[in-house]
This record gives sequence, C-alpha cells and structure tokens, in this order.
Amino acid sequence: MNRIYTVDTVGKVGEEVLLKGWVNARRDMGKIAFFDLRDREGIIQVVGVPAELDEKSLAAMRDARLEYLLEIRGVVQARGAKQVNPVMPTGTVELLAKEISIITASEPMPFAVDSDTKVISEELRLKYRYLDLRSERMLKNLVLRDKVISFMRDFLHQDGFIEVETPYITKGTPEGAREFLIPSRIYPGQFYALPQSPQQFKQLLMVGGIEKYFQIARCFRDEDQRGDRQPEFTQLDLEMSFVEREDILALTEKMMIDMVKKVTPGKRIQTVPFPRLSYKEVMDKYGTDKPDLREDKDDPNLLAFAWIIDFPFFEKTDEGGWTFSHNPFSRPNPEHMEWLMKKKNIGEILTTQYDIVLNGYEAGGGSIRNHEPEALHKVFEVMGFDEEGIQKQFGHMLEAFKFGAPPHGGIAPGIDRIIMILANEPNIREVIAFPKTGDARDLMMGAPSEIPQKAIDEVHIKLK
Amino acid sequence: MNRIYTVDTVGKVGEEVLLKGWVNARRDMGKIAFFDLRDREGIIQVVGVPAELDEKSLAAMRDARLEYLLEIRGVVQARGAKQVNPVMPTGTVELLAKEISIITASEPMPFAVDSDTKVISEELRLKYRYLDLRSERMLKNLVLRDKVISFMRDFLHQDGFIEVETPYITKGTPEGAREFLIPSRIYPGQFYALPQSPQQFKQLLMVGGIEKYFQIARCFRDEDQRGDRQPEFTQLDLEMSFVEREDILALTEKMMIDMVKKVTPGKRIQTVPFPRLSYKEVMDKYGTDKPDLREDKDDPNLLAFAWIIDFPFFEKTDEGGWTFSHNPFSRPNPEHMEWLMKKKNIGEILTTQYDIVLNGYEAGGGSIRNHEPEALHKVFEVMGFDEEGIQKQFGHMLEAFKFGAPPHGGIAPGIDRIIMILANEPNIREVIAFPKTGDARDLMMGAPSEIPQKAIDEVHIKLK
Repeated sequence: MNRIYTVDTVGKVGEEVLLKGWVNARRDMGKIAFFDLRDREGIIQVVGVPAELDEKSLAAMRDARLEYLLEIRGVVQARGAKQVNPVMPTGTVELLAKEISIITASEPMPFAVDSDTKVISEELRLKYRYLDLRSERMLKNLVLRDKVISFMRDFLHQDGFIEVETPYITKGTPEGAREFLIPSRIYPGQFYALPQSPQQFKQLLMVGGIEKYFQIARCFRDEDQRGDRQPEFTQLDLEMSFVEREDILALTEKMMIDMVKKVTPGKRIQTVPFPRLSYKEVMDKYGTDKPDLREDKDDPNLLAFAWIIDFPFFEKTDEGGWTFSHNPFSRPNPEHMEWLMKKKNIGEILTTQYDIVLNGYEAGGGSIRNHEPEALHKVFEVMGFDEEGIQKQFGHMLEAFKFGAPPHGGIAPGIDRIIMILANEPNIREVIAFPKTGDARDLMMGAPSEIPQKAIDEVHIKLK
Repeated sequence: MNRIYTVDTVGKVGEEVLLKGWVNARRDMGKIAFFDLRDREGIIQVVGVPAELDEKSLAAMRDARLEYLLEIRGVVQARGAKQVNPVMPTGTVELLAKEISIITASEPMPFAVDSDTKVISEELRLKYRYLDLRSERMLKNLVLRDKVISFMRDFLHQDGFIEVETPYITKGTPEGAREFLIPSRIYPGQFYALPQSPQQFKQLLMVGGIEKYFQIARCFRDEDQRGDRQPEFTQLDLEMSFVEREDILALTEKMMIDMVKKVTPGKRIQTVPFPRLSYKEVMDKYGTDKPDLREDKDDPNLLAFAWIIDFPFFEKTDEGGWTFSHNPFSRPNPEHMEWLMKKKNIGEILTTQYDIVLNGYEAGGGSIRNHEPEALHKVFEVMGFDEEGIQKQFGHMLEAFKFGAPPHGGIAPGIDRIIMILANEPNIREVIAFPKTGDARDLMMGAPSEIPQKAIDEVHIKLK
C-alpha cells in the first residue's frame, strides 16, 4: 500500500490508508490511545484501540513517545459531530489504527515542536535547528520562501530575463562592506574574497549583451552582526540594458504587487502606485531614509511600499575626503553629470540610486549605472584614488566599458527581509533554514572551528 | 518609439521600427553601407543609403566600427528573392536605415565575436569574458543552462519538492575533498569552510521533516584543477525521505528523459529505461566506472545514460586503513548491513551508492543514507576514527539521527557536466558564465590577488 499524507485522508472515509509521520502529541484514555500524527502536510488524530491491534502494534503504541516516527495502517473514519475540529484541516476525520510500527525512535526532545517555538531560547533552537524546522511555523516560513522565490523567477523569465550564476570565489573589492577572505593554496600570499554582491559581474553581463539578467544570489559580508544581519544573505539581483530609472521602478513595482497577490493574497498594499519620496523629503519628515509609512501599524496584513530617490551621491568621510553613499558604480542624476565631470559641488551631486522601503525596512536598492568610463573614473578620483589605485581596483571595469557598453541599471531586492515581512516575523533568522547567531556562529554545525595544522599550512598562512 | 528586437522585424515589412544593437559585421559598397546589427535575440542586415540619411546619421554610419553600439530607426523591407538568406532567422528582411546614432563607441576588439570564439586563445577569452559572451555560441550556452535548471526546478516543484537554501559559510568536514578556508575575524584562530556539497544540511532537512528537498547548489572544492574541474561548480542537490534506491532512480530517470524531450528535443536517448550495471561488471568490461556506452560515438545527438550500482563501500588507504569510496553517510546494501555492524568483510561490503553516467562522464551520484546512528558510527570506526574524533567531526549528525530520523536518500546530478554534454561542448568552462582557468585564476577580475595588510591582520593570520 502506498503511503499518503495526513491531509489526504479527508474524503477517504471508510478507506484503508497507510500513513508515516511523527508523534506530535499523545493522550492516553485508559486503554485507548490518541495520537496526533504529523507529516509535512499536516496532522491527523489517530485512535489506537487494543481490540483492533495485534501484540506488536500494541507494543509500538505503548512505546511511542513524542517525535517517534511511526508507520500506521488504518481506516479513515468520520468523527462524530461533537468531535469535529473545525480549525484542523483533517478535523472531520480520524484514523482508526489497524497496524502500528515504529520506524525510528526518538530520544526525549530538547523542546516541544507541537506549538510555536518562538518561546524557546534561540540558542537551543539554533543548536537543534533540524528539530525547530519540524514546527508548523518554521515549515510554513520555508514553504513561503520557496514560493516567493519561485514567483520572482517565473515573473522574470516570462519577461525575457535569463538567470545567470556568477562566481562566489572572486576578487576582493572596496565596495563598502568588509569581505570574507579565502587564502589561496596555489598562490602563496594571495587571497580570494566572497562577493558582497554580484554587482560587477552583473554589469559585465550587460557589457556581454545579456540585456536582461537576474539571479537569486547569495551575498557575503563580514560585518559586525549588530541588529538583524547574517554573514550571508540572499538577494534577487537583476540588471537590464537600455533602461532608465522609470523602467526598473515599474518592473519592480509590478513584480511586488503581483507577488503579494499571488503568494500572500491576505495582505493588502496600502498605496499603489508606490509613493515616491526624495531623500531630502524623507529625512526632513521622518528623520530616516526607511520610514514606516503604514497608517495602521497594528494591522499585520498591511504592506506600505515606497520608493526613496534622489540620494546624495557622495558623503564626507571621517578623514575629510569623499566616499560614495550607496554604490560607486551608480550614475549621477542627468542634471548633475556635469558637476561630476568637473568635480564640483560634490556634496550636492544626486545619484540615480533608488531604494524600495517596506514597512520601515529597506527592501532593496539599485541605480542606473555609470557606463561611461570617463565619468566612472571621475567617481574614483572624487573618492581619492590615484591613477594606480584606480587601475588596480577598477581597471577591468573601466576597460570593459570601452567596448560598446550599453546603458544599464538594476536593483537588488533583499529576499530575506521581504519574506520576513510577508511572514510577519521579527527577524530574518526565522525565514532562513540554517542561520547563524548574532555573533556569526553556527551552533548546530559548530562553526567556526579550529582546523588541523596541515590545512592551515597548505594555504601558506600562520595563526597570529 | 519602443525598441524591438531584431528577430521581431520579420512580419513587419513596411513598418518603421527602432532597433538597438552592436555592429556584428560591416560591408561598404561604395556609398552604401551594410551592417549586421546584433542584439540578444539575433541579427539583422541594415542598409545605409546616403539619400535616406541626414548629416548626423551619415557621420554615425561612417564612424561605426565593429561592436559599436547603435540605435537605428528604419523601415523593414522585404529582401529580393535572390537576397533571401535562408539560414538567418531575419533572412527575408532587412532594415533600411532612416536615422542612425552611436550609443557607445568601441575600441578595437581583442578578438572577433561574429563567429565561434573556440579558435581564440582561451586566456584571451577569459580575460575578456564579457566580450566572449557576445558570441552566439556562448549566449546559447547560457540560455540552455537557464532552461535546463528551470526545467529541473519546475519538475521537482510539481512533484512536491521544496527548494531550501543551505549555508555557504559553514564548518569544515573531512568528506573527501580539500576545502576552501575562511579565517574568522570574530574568533581568532578559528575557520569557516566553504561546503563541498550540502550533504549534511540536506540530511538534517530530512530529520527536520521536509521530506522532499532540492537546491540548485554551489559546491566548492580546493582540488588541483587537473582535467576539467572548477573551484566552484553547481549541482542539483536533492533528498527524499521514506524512499528506497528504486524511488530515487525512477525519479531521476524520469526527470532526465523529460528534460531532454523538453529542452533539447533534437537529442536521442539511446536506451530507456537506462541500463543498470554493477561496479564489478563495468570495471570488468570497460575498465572504468564511467563507460561511454554510445553505440555511435560520432553521433552528436546521442545520449547514453546508465546507472552504475553496487559500489564497494570502503577502499584501502595508502596507510593500510580503510576509507569510504564515495560517501561516508551512505547506507550499505541491506544484505551487508550485518557485516558493517560486525566490522567484518570490510572490503566486500557494498554500498547503496548509485552513479548516473552519461556519454562517458559521471553526471551525478547519490545513495540511500545511513540514518541509524549506531550503524553510521560503525562507518567512522572502520575509517579509523576514535570516539573523540567521531564526536568532534560527526557528533551533530549522530545526535540528530537520534530524534526520529526518517530513512532517506538522494542524488546530486552535476549541472555543469550535463549542460556541457547537451551543448556538445568539450569542457564545463564553455557553459559557465565566468569560469576560472585550470589553475584557479579569474583572469577577468584578477583573482586571487594580494590584499591590504589591514585586512589580513583583522582575521588574525600572518603570511608565511
């Protein structure tokens, strides 16, 4: 007999079925035992009556504790009107067990998974993440995540985008964040870095004529994990050629609206089209560039998207020089290109950068890029690089743009944050299968860890 | 006027259209110029006649060299019967230019991209990969790659699989290959590693009740790049609970057959169902465990899939001990479980490992896993680990399996190799957007590279 999922018992009253699942709860009523049996698709109540079971099944029923994995053959029966559980998808039926066997036993659980694990210490949840994932909420979050990402892929494929994988082992770039380093074994004293984003690769794909690229891309930043950060996170990275700001905003806005409609139809978007606010406006009015614009902050189904535009391109460094505020590869607003070329009014140059904010979070950002090598060169000059430094760090980009580079731009919505908000979760760890702690440890695997001296020797480094 | 793609001109005879693209070829016939204009979707012949063009357009036409990016407004006209080019999708039409402007100029190209770049030195192609990707073959390969991966995702989603992202910054494991190491900044003397596969995570997802998992996963191995290897590669990683070997083989086989039918319908699978050969059989007969079973090796459209089964679990190490031949987490064949538990006849124990071979390449491998902690413990004992070593390296897995772990198994087809074969390419670099050289360098980005001393100091290491 083929095993079916618990939810598929509904409508099979009177039929014999085979279920496999975990003991989610257990109630003994004298000689009769009631189990809640849980599989990936749901839960069903199982009734074990001694008269229906042979010795072996009775022993299994007696031994089965929480999270034992059982195989149960039984007959689906309708519950009496009073026993119907209207909040349970299988609440109209129960399974009368005919044969019970233990597939795998379980040691006593470090915490219960039959209710929301949010109340459990997070350290414990992360150490036993594989048990935490058995809880309904965590499974639902993973399923939602898959649905959101699948929606984005389908949406972009239908619009002619090509998904392209870019390298995770690459060259360090001074794009802002601190990067994770990988010492090279073949080249003593040299290092690879994990990319903080596929920024340069996606721009080079535009030079390569791909025209419409996207990737569900992992990004890596070795930053102090203050607040809700992870050493690695996922973004929908996309880039298009022959576009202006309006094209990227329209595409992204349509994608978000369609996504909400399809994946979380219970949610309501407060304002469509999304409001657009300038950086100046939003700082004056809200004192932050990620304002929470919800009119009713207690409504868990309200989504307030907005665009923030017209950011300053440069900001002062502590040393009195200039650095980029968002992305050195951005193009200034058209009316300020002349200032950039003349390196004047630096602090007043606005960039084509756009951020999308959602309920007080930055949910993504992008810009139209600076595809003219002379203009990009000016940006690096403003940032204080000398010619040698520019060539060493950015020479390959400046060179690439000399071969008929198309105008291009893109955006990179943050997948973790968007799913966190759609799932009404307070942090991104709740929507990542195997997150790290706030201080970058994997408590389940035990990373980071000491490694054999031989491995350290092989990459030509010593510990300090 | 909205820009259209070159291929969309067919059927628009007499209409005025706007095209954007690169000069793929140029022929001057006295005062008349013929361009081949290329965009992502194809190529069209453009005719520039002085009488139709103003001064500015004439200047643009005169200046435009190979790979200049042009914007051309013009009228689609039918070619004369003798001028029709039957091999060109737009061969029935041409564009009579009315207005030509240069979007971006190009320096002289380091190599031509209007024909197959296979004849160009690979070093040069990799340095200017963004130009190489403009060639028809390379773009086709990227598009095929996206189609194959999309097919796999759709196929598995339809079968109830959930895609889950697993970490790329994780703990080193002695699973076989040498791993890339990442020194920790927060924990001096400790390291993360890039995963050689999501093996442990996917098994932990099974313990977590996901039941059907897959992921298009990046894998990292710091191995000498002999032959056709890359430091990072992509696999379709999948795992299922409550399955036996037959289930995984049937699923994989159906996926491959449907994929070929949908994505490369011109290909023919030599034998369905795929032949199954034991390791012993195949070694005796072919002297390799990846035999090329094609009956006609000159047929570029022939695909000969086969399964290789019944591999020995262990093999002798140079030091006279035992190590696993494929995967320590595999389950022995049922009839040899007793030998494993008694640690006898080690060399004769067969594993549930299965490899799928395709045209002489290993296209994937997997196994039913050893979900019983006592049995898995025996594997590590055979491999010579003492109790402390076992706990340190594998304690988390042994512990996880104590909480009602389901029987499970999976497979991991190699995406790069499969696409390489479907694309009739000689190596996987031809189907990876930004591959590294045989000696692990990225010639375009310049990786690996020296990095500032400050960055080295921050992760508490010194160069030797």
